Amino acid sequence: MIMEKVCLVLGAGAGIGGSVGKKFAQEGYHAALARRSDEAGLNAMVSDIQAQGGSASGHLVNAVKPDAIENLIAEVEAIGPIEVVLFNLGAQIGNRSLEDTPLKTFELGWQMACNGLFRLAKVVIPLMVARGGGTLLVTSATAAVRGNEGQHSHAAAMGGRRMLCQSLNAEYARQGIHVAHILIDGAVDAPDTLGKMLGAENFAKLREARGMGNDGLLLPEKMAETYYHVSQQHRSAWTHELDLRAFSDLAWWNHAP
Amino acid sequence: MIMEKVCLVLGAGAGIGGSVGKKFAQEGYHAALARRSDEAGLNAMVSDIQAQGGSASGHLVNAVKPDAIENLIAEVEAIGPIEVVLFNLGAQIGNRSLEDTPLKTFELGWQMACNGLFRLAKVVIPLMVARGGGTLLVTSATAAVRGNEGQHSHAAAMGGRRMLCQSLNAEYARQGIHVAHILIDGAVDAPDTLGKMLGAENFAKLREARGMGNDGLLLPEKMAETYYHVSQQHRSAWTHELDLRAFSDLAWWNHAP
Amino acid sequence: MIMEKVCLVLGAGAGIGGSVGKKFAQEGYHAALARRSDEAGLNAMVSDIQAQGGSASGHLVNAVKPDAIENLIAEVEAIGPIEVVLFNLGAQIGNRSLEDTPLKTFELGWQMACNGLFRLAKVVIPLMVARGGGTLLVTSATAAVRGNEGQHSHAAAMGGRRMLCQSLNAEYARQGIHVAHILIDGAVDAPDTLGKMLGAENFAKLREARGMGNDGLLLPEKMAETYYHVSQQHRSAWTHELDLRAFSDLAWWNHAP
Amino acid sequence: MIMEKVCLVLGAGAGIGGSVGKKFAQEGYHAALARRSDEAGLNAMVSDIQAQGGSASGHLVNAVKPDAIENLIAEVEAIGPIEVVLFNLGAQIGNRSLEDTPLKTFELGWQMACNGLFRLAKVVIPLMVARGGGTLLVTSATAAVRGNEGQHSHAAAMGGRRMLCQSLNAEYARQGIHVAHILIDGAVDAPDTLGKMLGAENFAKLREARGMGNDGLLLPEKMAETYYHVSQQHRSAWTHELDLRAFSDLAWWNHAP
Repeated sequence: MIMEKVCLVLGAGAGIGGSVGKKFAQEGYHAALARRSDEAGLNAMVSDIQAQGGSASGHLVNAVKPDAIENLIAEVEAIGPIEVVLFNLGAQIGNRSLEDTPLKTFELGWQMACNGLFRLAKVVIPLMVARGGGTLLVTSATAAVRGNEGQHSHAAAMGGRRMLCQSLNAEYARQGIHVAHILIDGAVDAPDTLGKMLGAENFAKLREARGMGNDGLLLPEKMAETYYHVSQQHRSAWTHELDLRAFSDLAWWNHAP
Repeated sequence: MIMEKVCLVLGAGAGIGGSVGKKFAQEGYHAALARRSDEAGLNAMVSDIQAQGGSASGHLVNAVKPDAIENLIAEVEAIGPIEVVLFNLGAQIGNRSLEDTPLKTFELGWQMACNGLFRLAKVVIPLMVARGGGTLLVTSATAAVRGNEGQHSHAAAMGGRRMLCQSLNAEYARQGIHVAHILIDGAVDAPDTLGKMLGAENFAKLREARGMGNDGLLLPEKMAETYYHVSQQHRSAWTHELDLRAFSDLAWWNHAP
Repeated sequence: MIMEKVCLVLGAGAGIGGSVGKKFAQEGYHAALARRSDEAGLNAMVSDIQAQGGSASGHLVNAVKPDAIENLIAEVEAIGPIEVVLFNLGAQIGNRSLEDTPLKTFELGWQMACNGLFRLAKVVIPLMVARGGGTLLVTSATAAVRGNEGQHSHAAAMGGRRMLCQSLNAEYARQGIHVAHILIDGAVDAPDTLGKMLGAENFAKLREARGMGNDGLLLPEKMAETYYHVSQQHRSAWTHELDLRAFSDLAWWNHAP
Repeated sequence: MIMEKVCLVLGAGAGIGGSVGKKFAQEGYHAALARRSDEAGLNAMVSDIQAQGGSASGHLVNAVKPDAIENLIAEVEAIGPIEVVLFNLGAQIGNRSLEDTPLKTFELGWQMACNGLFRLAKVVIPLMVARGGGTLLVTSATAAVRGNEGQHSHAAAMGGRRMLCQSLNAEYARQGIHVAHILIDGAVDAPDTLGKMLGAENFAKLREARGMGNDGLLLPEKMAETYYHVSQQHRSAWTHELDLRAFSDLAWWNHAP
């Protein structure tokens, strides 16, 4: 029996994670979709991929639990060898002043966004190395390159994560592991994350202001094209870091003059 | 008569420039290939594309001459609307100590690598804006993000160019102009540039050491895949900056520990 | 009774921390020196300052223990208002491959280097804001700006810390809090940290190779001059980030050509 | 006859340049003040320093003229050995769209801000190396690290200049030359530059809004303290890059949330 090549998505919500999973399924991968909650939503995503002739599985996982990531890898490897992993867990909690950021919140942000990646890498990279190669895609955010007011937890977690990606790349590129840090610089048209953070009404207003789901926000299914491209780059020309933003948005380093 | 969409390459040597031109020709663009010298080589590249059923034209241009870039744009626009431009002029002159870098050399590096891009942008961006959009791809180098011993001319020119790319992006993204700064961090398997700089023997040795043209150096035809991908990104998810390096190479920020 | 103005040093070893404490004591501050272990060494530093007519106190603190930092602040505030804090806890554990970096090590690095700063900031910044201002100096390392092979724990912790410094600066500068991120890019002539990491023999060799404690390594008492200068900058011209390295060393972004 | 140690200031206007010159004169240097125009203003600055017991000379120089910088060095070296140079020529021309930036303007910006530094370095660094050391302070701007709308000329020139500073540092630090790139991130309280650019009325309004010359803008005489400190750092602990901004201002990488 020939096992399928697998793309595992940690953080497979209705935005980037789900869209990337769907894209890889379309391209012939088994999409292993892992998320913390909303079993119904997860099942719908799996069914949707299967209905289009793709292969997918759903995995409910609370990544901060001990052994959760480690067990997930084992579970998914039983389906097939993980060729690509997307680490798509975020730690955005909106703007919280230092005073309104409890120590627990600060620690949880780091556990999900940075420690989670370390745990994933510890388990999955040796498997990939043994197979001669693999790809680790990491969704990142502007907070990884600049701290901002109210971003104490988010920026610390994402900044640590970026440095971890560089460490992993430095240690493993020569062994065939492609680590890519994909910096999302702008609002994503994702009801599960941005939508929940803003609330339904504000999210609708933002979409309206930017073009009603057209292309004023980052569209996940368009972003997925670049995630996939990066995973397929020939090893003589790998990208380690790139940014993605909507044409209508200013880069994080720009202000209106 | 329906005119073809055009991809103009400034700096169409046998490395990145030629490979990108060929890729765009394969994808249905007319490839307008401009370089300073070697008419025979240029004609061969054009013939090669045509022999594979593609559309191409060759243009001998000394970009630092007054009006040279301006006239080239006019000439190419007569073939069809320039949808994509690759600015691929380099200013690498090897390592030269400050003492061994004449003022003239310093100025020439800047004229080609930075002033040339400004002149191109002044002419071609307004045409693209009038048509609702366009793409400006700029090949860059490690010297754009860090100065090094012996790199006075190269680093100043490329550092200026990177900031110019950001200025152009800030001013024109909202008008549909996609500016991408593609940072090549490593040695490219290109006989015209690296080969000439090192000399035939040293170039052969380097290729041998890295894997004989296999994939220890950056392979232009593989790099071209990413250049093309970036040019086709949906405007809701544009990349402004990305790096490219071989898996076997350390990133510029890394040293052997 | 007029209470003294206090400079608190977390991580007051025989290198940067102790030297900065001594410098502030010479300039009229009470130096509150906190470290995890070596009570004898700590007492010697305090006595040394007092013998020169300065004011100092020693505090043994294991910063990762719950409430340890919080209690330390209370203890030191009883001596006098903390005007300047130096957060000088490191997380350097030498080069450890991913395989040789247990999860516990990774977490501990972050708890000391990043979480510790967050806890400190939560307690001390509100006190400073209430008094109209204060200074938070943070010793940082090259690992804060680039990950490297074997630096998984260190780079993640320091990268997170750098972003946290930016967040704190963004939120509190306007309220009079000066946050400075001081990037030490090179080996410090410090027996307590570098000396222990390398072992006595290798440390002696390194000092010998670089000039025997002369100035081939970063000299803590010279570094302390800059730490002090930054703390005294007028609020119309504050530095948030600066680097320090020996003249004989290459910057982290440079390699021998 | 023992000749005085000299601090040469290129761009000695009534803001940073003049204040730094004055500071060095107070510390015992001969201040050689060079500027393009306003002989009366220059003479007043010289007289002011002399009246306070300092040593100073004025030099009218149009730096973009051939041999102008080279001749200036010779002239000043006749007074005494140049120990410190401040390169303080700017290229800020306000916000100009690409369309409103003539090629000539773009070239002039680069000639002053980047080529001028190269010419200075070519002449003065060998003199310093022969004497065993020296300091090159370079005033820089936010435009050196990010391009922005309307900043085509300024950003390209300053970005090139930053990379040149890194190249010079990489080549000459080990020979005792301290190159420092001082990034001014904000509006300076300088009537000659900002005042002229904004016009008297707008400048007065800005000062009013920020605190009427108090400390809402960067105060040149306070900035001069840090310029001087950097020049006096012991060679075991040199700073290559630092930023300066007013406490009341956001860093360039921050926006109001």
